[in-house]
Amino acid sequence: MNGAQALLRTLVDGGVDVCFANPGTSEMHFVAALDAVPRMRAVLSLFEGTVTGAADGYGRIADRPAATLLHLGPGMANGLANLHNARRAHTPIINVIGDHARDHKAFDAPLESDIDALTGWLQGWSRTSAAVEEIGADAASAIAAALTAPGQVANLVLPADVSWSEGGEPGTFTPPPPPVPVDDDRVAQIAEVVRGGESTVLLLGHGTTRERGLVAASRVAAATGVRLFAETFPARIERGAGLPTVERLGYLAEQVQWQLTDVRHLVLVGAKAPVSFFAYPGKPSELVPEGCQVHVLSGLGEDGTGALEHLADEVAAGVSPVLQEPVRPALPSGPLTPQNWTEVIGALLPEGAIVSDEANTSGLMIPMTTAGAPRHDVLTLTGGAIGQGLPVALGAAVAAPDRPVVCLQADGSAMYTVSSLWTMAREGLDVTTVVLNNRAYAILRMELSRVGAEAAGPRAGQLLDLSGPDLDFVSMARGMGVPASRATTAEELADQFAKALAEPGPHLIEAMVPSLL
Amino acid sequence: MNGAQALLRTLVDGGVDVCFANPGTSEMHFVAALDAVPRMRAVLSLFEGTVTGAADGYGRIADRPAATLLHLGPGMANGLANLHNARRAHTPIINVIGDHARDHKAFDAPLESDIDALTGWLQGWSRTSAAVEEIGADAASAIAAALTAPGQVANLVLPADVSWSEGGEPGTFTPPPPPVPVDDDRVAQIAEVVRGGESTVLLLGHGTTRERGLVAASRVAAATGVRLFAETFPARIERGAGLPTVERLGYLAEQVQWQLTDVRHLVLVGAKAPVSFFAYPGKPSELVPEGCQVHVLSGLGEDGTGALEHLADEVAAGVSPVLQEPVRPALPSGPLTPQNWTEVIGALLPEGAIVSDEANTSGLMIPMTTAGAPRHDVLTLTGGAIGQGLPVALGAAVAAPDRPVVCLQADGSAMYTVSSLWTMAREGLDVTTVVLNNRAYAILRMELSRVGAEAAGPRAGQLLDLSGPDLDFVSMARGMGVPASRATTAEELADQFAKALAEPGPHLIEAMVPSLL
Repeated sequence: MNGAQALLRTLVDGGVDVCFANPGTSEMHFVAALDAVPRMRAVLSLFEGTVTGAADGYGRIADRPAATLLHLGPGMANGLANLHNARRAHTPIINVIGDHARDHKAFDAPLESDIDALTGWLQGWSRTSAAVEEIGADAASAIAAALTAPGQVANLVLPADVSWSEGGEPGTFTPPPPPVPVDDDRVAQIAEVVRGGESTVLLLGHGTTRERGLVAASRVAAATGVRLFAETFPARIERGAGLPTVERLGYLAEQVQWQLTDVRHLVLVGAKAPVSFFAYPGKPSELVPEGCQVHVLSGLGEDGTGALEHLADEVAAGVSPVLQEPVRPALPSGPLTPQNWTEVIGALLPEGAIVSDEANTSGLMIPMTTAGAPRHDVLTLTGGAIGQGLPVALGAAVAAPDRPVVCLQADGSAMYTVSSLWTMAREGLDVTTVVLNNRAYAILRMELSRVGAEAAGPRAGQLLDLSGPDLDFVSMARGMGVPASRATTAEELADQFAKALAEPGPHLIEAMVPSLL
Repeated sequence: MNGAQALLRTLVDGGVDVCFANPGTSEMHFVAALDAVPRMRAVLSLFEGTVTGAADGYGRIADRPAATLLHLGPGMANGLANLHNARRAHTPIINVIGDHARDHKAFDAPLESDIDALTGWLQGWSRTSAAVEEIGADAASAIAAALTAPGQVANLVLPADVSWSEGGEPGTFTPPPPPVPVDDDRVAQIAEVVRGGESTVLLLGHGTTRERGLVAASRVAAATGVRLFAETFPARIERGAGLPTVERLGYLAEQVQWQLTDVRHLVLVGAKAPVSFFAYPGKPSELVPEGCQVHVLSGLGEDGTGALEHLADEVAAGVSPVLQEPVRPALPSGPLTPQNWTEVIGALLPEGAIVSDEANTSGLMIPMTTAGAPRHDVLTLTGGAIGQGLPVALGAAVAAPDRPVVCLQADGSAMYTVSSLWTMAREGLDVTTVVLNNRAYAILRMELSRVGAEAAGPRAGQLLDLSGPDLDFVSMARGMGVPASRATTAEELADQFAKALAEPGPHLIEAMVPSLL
């Protein structure tokens, strides 16, 4: 068997049976091997940023990696921004980058570049497969690396000749050790802190914002009076009726400072101490209040959920978590506003939904209006690199074909990876995308004043304005095979959203929401 | 004045008065400074790949750099693929990458990343401005670096606090030295080769495929019988009636081998010895025929055009160049074919057009059918990273508002940077885009068999197929404000192409061309 076949067999035997792909000539043997290894499902995307974002969405929902297939350095370059988000999300991904045959590299052909510089940028596991005999073992190592707690992007560079040469052998994937348990002493120390009666916050980070972690944290809070927050951009947070509701730290430094006012103890659970998303003249980057002591219950790679359960056993024996009541907003009426569109979503969000949230400024109210909706998962913009919402929704829908996926998508960000819509149509994925079209980079209007750029005038304003011409997402979606409609009132949005959810396959609704700013 | 203002003043004083931008929060002071420095024209794009591709197209036509404005590492990442093409084209670009304030970097905020790894990938000039007092001088150095022969992408990383701090001073740009002249001895040696009477080819590379270089080379050929080729993917080649016609080396190794059959002397003029674009099992990467001696008339950074003129003076005194007669194909009729659409373009291409050519497999005949059209420039896919055609057309149109720009664009590649259409509409640019919609990655169908991937079956074929759903570029273009129409016959294409050329502003024609393969 050739190297490509050995690679694919290793992947599917290791539980990696979806590959998001945008191949080129150097990847043709990988593509050909798909017929030899039919257990691998290949999903074509028209741009690598969609490939990598989809792999991120898939991994966050499936809890196991998808593979990608990227074409040489430039293909990898196009995929980097969403790999950056995946890195911040600690999503397991097998990122396969085709390269020229090894003998060909010295000739500096047009597409030649230093792929290691790009994998280095991601700071994770990376290996170039050096021989066809090794590709199976390399792939097995990549799976193990991707799944090693807390999860990561594992880059596997695949020279074309390694792919096409005979002599490949499938490798055997050895599951990595589970996350490191937190020792009793640390739990005991934190138990003392939370029992101390001073103003204390538990900050829930990677891996602890799912049912088990939330329930344990809620028990601790109920028993001791500590408050809970989730990190600003969780990779995945479970929420809705029947689960504890945990507010996220705000995006703006001012929000965080307000949320943490007078806090004396901040306990990190797989989270980092909060810092400002951007720097602002004369404002601090660190957001831990003065005089607040920072404690670590669990670091990345440690079993934060287990530690929370252990802590709950210590300090909250017999105490129940506080669970969200089922409660939905009433269906609003009238022209769309930055608030009422979120009420429509809250009123209609279906049971078991996966929400890919890149609504940005338009989405400020969405956590409130969906808190009591049926149980759902929210996937957020972990790394701040916009253009994540659509591909993450795509990948999530591949991972969970039985669940409805809702993509809440700001207009400006949508344009980065808009061809995701085509793949949703091709694969018949049940994704309902709501594009919030406010015809502006609204967040930058806000930031322009927040950074103190007082001299800004109309020429600056032009750069934040997405009108003239207006983007028409209905036409664009239809051009990519996705049924689409436009809503200008809450009634229209409700009607269109309900219909889209009721019909299988992808839909797009362009919601004409005025800018908050 | 603050750092951003000092930067902008330095740029416009140095002749850099266009900035293609996709800014974020860390770039808000740069954006605000646009009102203080109105000589700088800022052109907003909705994706960084469009920003950098536009800067490439601008530089190739203007012969001076545009600036970019990119948002941190992820913004730079999105721009890399077209910067790779620009690197291969030796296009002067001032690539401005905003970064976090220096004090903020240690906090590893979500968008933090190692920007140096990305600039390093481009292997060109790069500097992080370390203080507001230095930004003016840094910008002046960047302009000089970008313009230093043969031209390059100069990366200038701009920390937000350097941008917002007071104390900036404009820097003074010192023009770099001109390209190094080729000495008399080398010209004399090459004169001997071309006079030798053996089968000889002059391969014209960077900077020598414009009028002066072509005329001199043609005189040499006319006087000595040597043959001329241009490199496969010139950054810019001038052609059409009244200029010497110089065939380009083929994309496929087999074509080059055929073109260079029995050649005994290959003389490189700013070009590299030809190598295969990709590696193929059992085929050589080097395409210089056995027994052929390779000579260098000029290397990159040397004055190849001057050397050709010097050589012509030596060997072709009094000999005239062979100039292309004006000759156009007749307007064809009937359903579109891979050939007849190129005859329509050849029949109607306007005087002084700039052609951004990313037609790929659909464009195989276009060099032949446009050879005798009125004089025009062709900009080709220098680095092989697809998604260049639309943004390069955009940038070229900004550089030459008085010239018609024609973008010949394959369907698959179009989707990488399709939002370029919106910027064309916003800026009212006179670009006529013809999308060749063959509903396939046709080139990969060819490559799948060329690489010897015999096992490929229907599952592989699915990954090369862009139908189901069919991409509808008319809808997509209209969704971005560009008037659009669809042509299925040669008559329709001719009619729509002529109308689009006659009307100002952008137009898109979706030409339903069957796949060659």
